[in-house]
Amino acid sequence: MTTLTSMRTHHPPPLPPPLPPLCPPNYLQYYNRYLSHGEVRVFKPHGMAAHLFIEMGTYRGGPRSFSIVGLASKPIDIFHHPPYACEWISRGGGGGGGGSSEAAAPVVVKGEVHKILPDWNYGRLYTVVVLTCKFKEDVGTDKSGGDLVLYASYGDKYREPERIVVFTEVKDEYNATLFNTPFPYDYVYCGSSIYGDVSPQRMREWMAYHANFFGNRSHFFFHDSGGFHDDVRRVLEPWVKQGRVTIQNIQQQEIYDGYYHNQFLVVNDCLFRSRFLANWTFFFDVDEYMYVNPATTLSAVLEQDKNVTQITFEQVPISNEICIRDNSTNDYSRKWIFEKLVYRKVLKRGIRYDRKYAVQARHVEATGVHMSMNMLKGKNLYVKGDQIRYYHYHGTLDKRSEVCKHFVDPRNKTEVVTVQHENHRIDETMFEIVAPTKQYELETIGNLPTII
Amino acid sequence: MTTLTSMRTHHPPPLPPPLPPLCPPNYLQYYNRYLSHGEVRVFKPHGMAAHLFIEMGTYRGGPRSFSIVGLASKPIDIFHHPPYACEWISRGGGGGGGGSSEAAAPVVVKGEVHKILPDWNYGRLYTVVVLTCKFKEDVGTDKSGGDLVLYASYGDKYREPERIVVFTEVKDEYNATLFNTPFPYDYVYCGSSIYGDVSPQRMREWMAYHANFFGNRSHFFFHDSGGFHDDVRRVLEPWVKQGRVTIQNIQQQEIYDGYYHNQFLVVNDCLFRSRFLANWTFFFDVDEYMYVNPATTLSAVLEQDKNVTQITFEQVPISNEICIRDNSTNDYSRKWIFEKLVYRKVLKRGIRYDRKYAVQARHVEATGVHMSMNMLKGKNLYVKGDQIRYYHYHGTLDKRSEVCKHFVDPRNKTEVVTVQHENHRIDETMFEIVAPTKQYELETIGNLPTII
Repeated sequence: MTTLTSMRTHHPPPLPPPLPPLCPPNYLQYYNRYLSHGEVRVFKPHGMAAHLFIEMGTYRGGPRSFSIVGLASKPIDIFHHPPYACEWISRGGGGGGGGSSEAAAPVVVKGEVHKILPDWNYGRLYTVVVLTCKFKEDVGTDKSGGDLVLYASYGDKYREPERIVVFTEVKDEYNATLFNTPFPYDYVYCGSSIYGDVSPQRMREWMAYHANFFGNRSHFFFHDSGGFHDDVRRVLEPWVKQGRVTIQNIQQQEIYDGYYHNQFLVVNDCLFRSRFLANWTFFFDVDEYMYVNPATTLSAVLEQDKNVTQITFEQVPISNEICIRDNSTNDYSRKWIFEKLVYRKVLKRGIRYDRKYAVQARHVEATGVHMSMNMLKGKNLYVKGDQIRYYHYHGTLDKRSEVCKHFVDPRNKTEVVTVQHENHRIDETMFEIVAPTKQYELETIGNLPTII
Repeated sequence: MTTLTSMRTHHPPPLPPPLPPLCPPNYLQYYNRYLSHGEVRVFKPHGMAAHLFIEMGTYRGGPRSFSIVGLASKPIDIFHHPPYACEWISRGGGGGGGGSSEAAAPVVVKGEVHKILPDWNYGRLYTVVVLTCKFKEDVGTDKSGGDLVLYASYGDKYREPERIVVFTEVKDEYNATLFNTPFPYDYVYCGSSIYGDVSPQRMREWMAYHANFFGNRSHFFFHDSGGFHDDVRRVLEPWVKQGRVTIQNIQQQEIYDGYYHNQFLVVNDCLFRSRFLANWTFFFDVDEYMYVNPATTLSAVLEQDKNVTQITFEQVPISNEICIRDNSTNDYSRKWIFEKLVYRKVLKRGIRYDRKYAVQARHVEATGVHMSMNMLKGKNLYVKGDQIRYYHYHGTLDKRSEVCKHFVDPRNKTEVVTVQHENHRIDETMFEIVAPTKQYELETIGNLPTII
């Protein structure tokens, strides 16, 4: 599949260090006032606490709009409400169609910026911003190319804005057909930032299951913020080679203190990356397994109502330590996670359990970890768990040893099991899918080692 | 008096712009990790939202301690709790006494930093910090000179601390006698940041009154954050020339968004500036007038209890518009503020009215606008208003026109006057002091113009 490369998405060119030289903010000549009288006090600054704006990626949304995903200094946003501005600078001829393709004076077209802060105020030094830049006319559709410029300001009277070229389209790059159906995939998976000491076996199992679940008209984006060590990459490599998986190396964002490995930034970047790749984009974690009732199909569930552009899924929380004793062995390590952890927590009234979701990415303006609050079109369906749900194997991903700790006598397996003051009941739904999953894996990528 | 210059206080040398070159924070070689695999995403930073640390001043507190007053990035402080470190680098010989005075290898003595955040969480981009650096032994007391170095850190694993030389003592500068009584003054006045379109007449009146109130063993520090325009400086000039007044030009701090013209920063800087200049330092505004019951004296009030090192004063809020009609004139502009505004608000139960205060600066570690929360020794006396209090002429300082708006018939002057739903009663206490004040002014500095 060449689709990923034909859809060229724009992010800053991946240059290695050293760091770009930083110019101090160009404070206006306010200083001159201070020389005139009195005992002049100098307030000597040191170091740099935070940048004003950090680009992650910019994506064209259509003939006259773009989405810019980044981080902004949180206190400046809160206290100064700094305005943003954007403009398109055509490479030649004009913003829209027509005109000769010979070199002409660049034309500047001013756009309007709509700012969204999608991270629920979780940001620390930085807050995630999604900026939608819209023009009143088509820009660059004559394929002459151009630059999208963002002005990020400080919101005070002392500093000029930062002028940032966030997107560059070269001559003939613009391709109108990319923005319309049909899309190259049915489904795209967008994962959150993955960090920590991840168990390769857990990734292997999840990958095999979901490659099968979504089928081969699907693509998976993972975001490595430190979790994808050598052994994890080894079990994913066959899928990468088959073009099913892309691992985005986002380790550099660790130095910018947004929130929790900048997960809100990452899901938004992936949202736009996926926008014209597939009809539906799924957002859930790699310790969560999607499940569809075999009486229906994933496609039927998603298409049940044309007005529905977002669907949120119920969670089945699974105990990460209760297993059924297998009298034939003491070694549970070769059993897959959804083969041996088969006890679900009994849900309590009045408690809000997390949900995950899928959206039609082109119909939302920004997104979050559990849902999109910025729908442009259509409605959100909180679908019933009997149709579709997900199984959450919380606390298993970075477990580098046997997970089974509490064993149930198989003769009593249907009884309530109480562990750590929580009641559990058996749910062998996922157990049924183990054999087909292993078979699918063998057929698709062959043998893999088991590395816990 | 040469005392102000003999007590050399340390703040960054008053160099004019251009800005010091800023080096980007020296991120550790974390970047190298990102090159190794996957689709590498670059997070391109732009601009600088805020500095890590901004020095205002550093003051020696004694043979083995110093106080550093500055601003720190607020989100870094809140989320990273960055540690501070300090050390003394002697110019030669050693930290303490003894040793030859010939050039010797510099000796580094590590101190301990105690951090105080005195601004009640009001900070926006910056929070005020007062750092007390203490050593286990005397430093620099051999008069060999030295540097005090502060390390301000980022509190993350990616950035090295900023090394800041905050204080330099030259050979023979150290003077042990400065830290002990007797002090050159009885009283020092520390004013908050003054901004806006200040009425010169109001400053003239306040100055004459308080120069008289505190007597000539007193000194006044004003802090100009934009309010001391030409005409204001004109009416203060005679006092400046007599050495009674110092105007600190703090306009540069306006570019750093702390809180309210960085007033918490300013009062702390002045606290330390005043520490060994006078027994008592007063903190109140230039629309507030101190008053002592003539049956006693200011000195007697302050010295009533040797254990009292801080005294807070009750406020008498004065209406800024009620005057007694003077049938002999229509022009009230030549009457002084405390001559014509003679109606006090009737205080309501259950409402907390602001107080102002005086401290023995050497007995507190940091301070605030209404009191010090960081007393090292002694106790705080909430003194009764009959002994000492202050009259607050709120809303008169930047009034560039006649303040009197509501006139009371002199025959009814003792009745309750209700204006804007607030009750007022006459209080002519300050009126009694107008004549002596004007006389004192004439005798001390001669005639001044009346510029509203």
